[in-house]
Amino acid sequence: MSKYIKPSSKKAGLAPGSYVFIGDQKVEDIRISITDYDEQNHKFISVKDLEEIFPFRDRPTISWINIYGLHETSILERIGNHFKIHPLVLEDIVNTDSRPKLEVNNNYVFIVLKMIYFDEEKSDLMIEQFSLIIGRNLVICFQERESNIFQSIRDRIQDSQSRLRKHSADYLAYILIDVIVDHYFVVLEKLGDNLELLEEEVLDTPGKDTLRKINHFKRNLILLRKHIWPLREVLGGLARGEIEHFEKTTLPYIRDCYDHIIRVIETIESYREMATGVLEIYLTNASNRLNEVMKVLTIIATIFIPLTFLTGLYGMNFEFMPELKWRSAYPVLLLIMILITAGMVVFFRKKDWL
Amino acid sequence: MSKYIKPSSKKAGLAPGSYVFIGDQKVEDIRISITDYDEQNHKFISVKDLEEIFPFRDRPTISWINIYGLHETSILERIGNHFKIHPLVLEDIVNTDSRPKLEVNNNYVFIVLKMIYFDEEKSDLMIEQFSLIIGRNLVICFQERESNIFQSIRDRIQDSQSRLRKHSADYLAYILIDVIVDHYFVVLEKLGDNLELLEEEVLDTPGKDTLRKINHFKRNLILLRKHIWPLREVLGGLARGEIEHFEKTTLPYIRDCYDHIIRVIETIESYREMATGVLEIYLTNASNRLNEVMKVLTIIATIFIPLTFLTGLYGMNFEFMPELKWRSAYPVLLLIMILITAGMVVFFRKKDWL
Amino acid sequence: MSKYIKPSSKKAGLAPGSYVFIGDQKVEDIRISITDYDEQNHKFISVKDLEEIFPFRDRPTISWINIYGLHETSILERIGNHFKIHPLVLEDIVNTDSRPKLEVNNNYVFIVLKMIYFDEEKSDLMIEQFSLIIGRNLVICFQERESNIFQSIRDRIQDSQSRLRKHSADYLAYILIDVIVDHYFVVLEKLGDNLELLEEEVLDTPGKDTLRKINHFKRNLILLRKHIWPLREVLGGLARGEIEHFEKTTLPYIRDCYDHIIRVIETIESYREMATGVLEIYLTNASNRLNEVMKVLTIIATIFIPLTFLTGLYGMNFEFMPELKWRSAYPVLLLIMILITAGMVVFFRKKDWL
Amino acid sequence: MSKYIKPSSKKAGLAPGSYVFIGDQKVEDIRISITDYDEQNHKFISVKDLEEIFPFRDRPTISWINIYGLHETSILERIGNHFKIHPLVLEDIVNTDSRPKLEVNNNYVFIVLKMIYFDEEKSDLMIEQFSLIIGRNLVICFQERESNIFQSIRDRIQDSQSRLRKHSADYLAYILIDVIVDHYFVVLEKLGDNLELLEEEVLDTPGKDTLRKINHFKRNLILLRKHIWPLREVLGGLARGEIEHFEKTTLPYIRDCYDHIIRVIETIESYREMATGVLEIYLTNASNRLNEVMKVLTIIATIFIPLTFLTGLYGMNFEFMPELKWRSAYPVLLLIMILITAGMVVFFRKKDWL
Amino acid sequence: MSKYIKPSSKKAGLAPGSYVFIGDQKVEDIRISITDYDEQNHKFISVKDLEEIFPFRDRPTISWINIYGLHETSILERIGNHFKIHPLVLEDIVNTDSRPKLEVNNNYVFIVLKMIYFDEEKSDLMIEQFSLIIGRNLVICFQERESNIFQSIRDRIQDSQSRLRKHSADYLAYILIDVIVDHYFVVLEKLGDNLELLEEEVLDTPGKDTLRKINHFKRNLILLRKHIWPLREVLGGLARGEIEHFEKTTLPYIRDCYDHIIRVIETIESYREMATGVLEIYLTNASNRLNEVMKVLTIIATIFIPLTFLTGLYGMNFEFMPELKWRSAYPVLLLIMILITAGMVVFFRKKDWL
Repeated sequence: MSKYIKPSSKKAGLAPGSYVFIGDQKVEDIRISITDYDEQNHKFISVKDLEEIFPFRDRPTISWINIYGLHETSILERIGNHFKIHPLVLEDIVNTDSRPKLEVNNNYVFIVLKMIYFDEEKSDLMIEQFSLIIGRNLVICFQERESNIFQSIRDRIQDSQSRLRKHSADYLAYILIDVIVDHYFVVLEKLGDNLELLEEEVLDTPGKDTLRKINHFKRNLILLRKHIWPLREVLGGLARGEIEHFEKTTLPYIRDCYDHIIRVIETIESYREMATGVLEIYLTNASNRLNEVMKVLTIIATIFIPLTFLTGLYGMNFEFMPELKWRSAYPVLLLIMILITAGMVVFFRKKDWL
Repeated sequence: MSKYIKPSSKKAGLAPGSYVFIGDQKVEDIRISITDYDEQNHKFISVKDLEEIFPFRDRPTISWINIYGLHETSILERIGNHFKIHPLVLEDIVNTDSRPKLEVNNNYVFIVLKMIYFDEEKSDLMIEQFSLIIGRNLVICFQERESNIFQSIRDRIQDSQSRLRKHSADYLAYILIDVIVDHYFVVLEKLGDNLELLEEEVLDTPGKDTLRKINHFKRNLILLRKHIWPLREVLGGLARGEIEHFEKTTLPYIRDCYDHIIRVIETIESYREMATGVLEIYLTNASNRLNEVMKVLTIIATIFIPLTFLTGLYGMNFEFMPELKWRSAYPVLLLIMILITAGMVVFFRKKDWL
Repeated sequence: MSKYIKPSSKKAGLAPGSYVFIGDQKVEDIRISITDYDEQNHKFISVKDLEEIFPFRDRPTISWINIYGLHETSILERIGNHFKIHPLVLEDIVNTDSRPKLEVNNNYVFIVLKMIYFDEEKSDLMIEQFSLIIGRNLVICFQERESNIFQSIRDRIQDSQSRLRKHSADYLAYILIDVIVDHYFVVLEKLGDNLELLEEEVLDTPGKDTLRKINHFKRNLILLRKHIWPLREVLGGLARGEIEHFEKTTLPYIRDCYDHIIRVIETIESYREMATGVLEIYLTNASNRLNEVMKVLTIIATIFIPLTFLTGLYGMNFEFMPELKWRSAYPVLLLIMILITAGMVVFFRKKDWL
Repeated sequence: MSKYIKPSSKKAGLAPGSYVFIGDQKVEDIRISITDYDEQNHKFISVKDLEEIFPFRDRPTISWINIYGLHETSILERIGNHFKIHPLVLEDIVNTDSRPKLEVNNNYVFIVLKMIYFDEEKSDLMIEQFSLIIGRNLVICFQERESNIFQSIRDRIQDSQSRLRKHSADYLAYILIDVIVDHYFVVLEKLGDNLELLEEEVLDTPGKDTLRKINHFKRNLILLRKHIWPLREVLGGLARGEIEHFEKTTLPYIRDCYDHIIRVIETIESYREMATGVLEIYLTNASNRLNEVMKVLTIIATIFIPLTFLTGLYGMNFEFMPELKWRSAYPVLLLIMILITAGMVVFFRKKDWL
Repeated sequence: MSKYIKPSSKKAGLAPGSYVFIGDQKVEDIRISITDYDEQNHKFISVKDLEEIFPFRDRPTISWINIYGLHETSILERIGNHFKIHPLVLEDIVNTDSRPKLEVNNNYVFIVLKMIYFDEEKSDLMIEQFSLIIGRNLVICFQERESNIFQSIRDRIQDSQSRLRKHSADYLAYILIDVIVDHYFVVLEKLGDNLELLEEEVLDTPGKDTLRKINHFKRNLILLRKHIWPLREVLGGLARGEIEHFEKTTLPYIRDCYDHIIRVIETIESYREMATGVLEIYLTNASNRLNEVMKVLTIIATIFIPLTFLTGLYGMNFEFMPELKWRSAYPVLLLIMILITAGMVVFFRKKDWL
């Protein structure tokens, strides 16, 4: 399978709405947990039997259902049936190569976005899909595997004074998106460090590997942009305030999140331009080094080739070469050679090569 | 004829609506097959006489007529007359260089798109035109030759439980488009493999042919984009939901297909950027190798040219050269030469050339 | 005068609506011909006296007036007066550097476009201006010189069964535009052949002239795009169907023509990208050849310079050099030289230079 | 002060509407002239006392007031007060680095544009600001210095038959703008000549200075575009026909002028692309010349280095070298050398280096 | 922490509206000053106790409150509570990496923009955040540290005749923005000087450091654009005149400021293109210098290598070499050598290398 994209080629020829899990399976079993709260109470439930989650569909409290693992499509289908999720939406949830998007329905709002981590060892981006169904008093999250990125949210839910407890499900959804978007800045910061290291390497110790690293860095930016760019539209769509499930009081928060996405995108673009600059320095340094190498060669050759010619001249075996008999011929020739060398040095200095 | 495009230059000077087949003839005879179904029944008919297809125009069941081969324009004209297809539409069907497009009529919706295969042997794209007339209970497909890409659809029609059997003709049209679009991912995946191979070749064994391959790859992307880009508009037009022939329930499926096209286009763009990166590596490697070659030359020349000068010096035939008589002159000179060599090596090490 | 553009600098300071012929005069005298037809009759008239054309302004039959040659501004002014053409429109007709455009008036529609030929000998584009006044039952064409590009239209007019005879003047105008646009494909095809030849030349026999040819090709594309691009807007404007002179039944034809223009533009863009690719190959080939040259030099120099040093060493005239007396010194030295050479060859093979 | 722009840094910290003259003072004293005309009469007045111009504010004839020199802000302030010009508008008039713009007011329309000349000696653009206040029967022009570019307009005013005499003030304004825009074509033509010369120089006699000239040319285009591009918006705004001061009959003229601006901009863009092509030729020529230099070196070195080795070989002083005693050794060696040389020449021919 | 951006990664996981100060703390303590004025009176207050500022919320005079230092979030929170500032707005004020933006509320208008200085020693941009709350008769400014950039405004407030005293709070806000935008021109001018120096350096004394400087310059432009570009939208939003807090009479001033921003952006773009041109000159100069180096080497080598071969030839020790015995052999050979050298010089002159 191609390294860069996970084309849905597996699916070519299947009926639409066929739930084929696309991607690498990251957990053994699907695991489900529920966080249920209102202003007065809150509880955390680790679900053992799938049917435990069904009653949470219609409860007046806010239910946040987390589903980890997307490979058992039969379980997801049962969830989909109970919560009346459209087959195409389920297909998008299961296909981990979906594009970030927003779909609004009578019953729910469906959002796909990407959780992005930076694997510092491999200098690689790790991208996981995060799908969100936002209904009345209900938020269902689909993730590829369990992560502790949302622990801080659970902590806040435990605090009965927190703003979260007083708002409805759309605010919870906002918080989830916000946490993910805030994490993009962590990735950006690491990429920024990377860029700085690359710059230093290019200026101080450029090697064979440097080019590969610059290219890898640029590729990471291409991937990052590809996965974050569509989010702009998603959040823009939410911020416009035409979606019934989202209350007026949540909109300023969404708009704030939208601003963050714009800043992320702008920073990616700046990084791209800077990476191009780093590449330019690398290339110019290479050509400068060639210049330097050639100068050394030229200086050496230009000084010694004429001298060697002179030694050759007096190394000839002609019987009649009057100079060979002269007493002072050798010291005079040495002097001439010194003068030639000095002349060359002056010439190279004038040319600024020495 | 030009290899890259099939300009409609043959047609210059002809009346509009002249059906001139443009392209390479891919089948001997035009062949026609019909799939007719409703919720209760279904049948497959292999048409022998053209007039067999005429009654299917007005039947209440859904009729899917497949026409393979576009070179016999007289047959197509008769079909056009019976099904009331506008001459310009027929012209577009027959001209296999048409641009993907959507045209809406009182009687039917006309869609042109491209089936794209990847010929792995030649690393070439094979592009075939696929035209679609969608009427009430009627879908007519025009292809350049028979293909088994739609076999899975026929299988689904045989299954009386399949969603296909319960929907109207627009859903069938959607399925046809979806199969073609899904096949783009197959092409993308193969191109992705290609790109990876190119990258490895550039880094490990760059040769004279590498550049040609990179260029060929980029050209394939240019062609691919040219044929897929307009589809965005086509599907966008269908998804807007203002076309009478398309029912509300089909729209989410169309929108899903639209999302796929966006993803295809974005992947093409990423590939283009990556191909540019590969080219940059290739070029930089070439210049790095030149640097290396020059370093070897410079090191050898810089070490031996002064030494050779010294040997030349004492190879001269002057009668009066006191050194020639000295006992230890030869070993001393050898020592000097070793010192010079050592000095050069130190110098090159400092310059990081060794 | 500048070769690339014909700036209207001659006109700076003149009153607007001054008819100054700009361009190269291509015919001796202005010549006028008229084609007059309706469903029943048709006649061709070669006009001798300018006033012959005046009555055709108000006839119920469709009159197609062709005016060849634009340099006698006084004649054009009289035509303008009689047919009530706005002075600025006349100015645009006469200025052969006008930009393709569409102007709608109460009385007529005014269209400027460019006829483009490809002069294969010089590999140059030849661009001529074609202006069109479309009134009620009246089409006036202004061309720089007579051409037989429209002969096929005249043939169709002679055929009383042709669609042309049944439609009104706007259809004739469409046909004229269509013929010109179809001819763009001829130009594109020739440019495509050119591009292929260039590619082969770059890969097989790149020479000093190759770069000039690539540049010339790119310049042709720049010119072509400059003259065709605005046509998009012109045809888009016609296709929108808001112009009174154009009937509903003509619109699908116009839209078809619009599609062709889009395809022309897209092909130009593809060519541009391909030309850039050809240039890249050229440049990389040049740098590859430099690499090869340098490798040959380096191999030769690196092998022989040390050997020459050795010969120099034993060419010295020191009195006390024990090796010179040894019996086997010469064959041993030869052996050492062979070993050095073999070692170098192995080294170069490992570096992949041989 | 920076050469390329005149940043308004002088003004940082001042109150808005402070009239600070920015730019180089081009005349000693402010000079004012008035041209006053209607269909019957016309007169030219050279103003001595500022107050002479005040009555022209309210006269029924068309008054065209020209003010040359912008450095005496106190005079401009008095004019501004009398003619009720907004302080910010006065500020824009005085700041000669203003961007071309259109401002519509209850009392007047305010237009800023740039007069551009080409100084052929320095190959430099000379840019002067031209501001225009268009009121009822009143046009006030502010220029940096007197110029005779408008002489032709004054001539036309003297001709009682000219169209100018029959139209209102907006037509005069149009004529002024048209003259300036037409002058852009003069500049373009000179730049076009320049480009052609550059091309020839690059192909025939590229030198050290060539690159500087190409760069200078590109910089001129950047400047030109910067000053002309916004004019598009200005004329587009006028052409939309929503400005009360501009009559319906003037609109076609404005639109014509708008077309000219589009053509100017397109020509600038073509020039930019062509200049890039010229730069590419220059760079490739440089690398081709390097190739040629290296080939000469390689051929010479590759032929003579092995030969020199051979001479060195038989220049050694070993006592036991049987060849030295052979009679035919010398002619045989010469023959071998000739064969080696011939072999090399064949090799180089095969490589296409000779 | 990354040098180029200050990603809000610190905040990942925190509740929205958590006031985390992001950036470098630039002052010890938060300092507050108030300027209060109306047409009759004005006073300046240096606030000691935070609560002193509270009554200014509801006074009929115009109160301009300046808060220097953003790190003590508790103080800012109290201010926020009293002046009813939304928590998200406070968050943006405190996060010094906010993007320039405009937010309109029932109570106030919130604007973020950037004060930009140019540190000439390091050739670095210094960027500080400036936030503005504009309420009824109230303007609150939040800055990272005290600066004297607004001193001129305070001076104007002291002048009871100044326009400032007669307008409402929105005009004061405009003046503040205008001062900051005008300062951008100062930065641009310094960057322009920088660019000119770079150009001279590239042409006259290009060194190893030059490339780094060009890159640094380009990076400054990237940063500058990133911080100024969004301001376009902010001022565009204000200029549209749909904000209740901004009076009709202030709009022309805002529009003027908007024009300035456009000019700033255009100048940045021109600088970018010019910097690219400078880089091109640098690169081409490097390749020209390589050419020159290689020419010197080639000329020297090509002249002396054949000569050295000849000396080697007659340095051979064959017993039977008739030439060695000839009387005139030596002078004849010298003559031949001179002829060869002359031939080479002629050859090089023809090639234009000398």
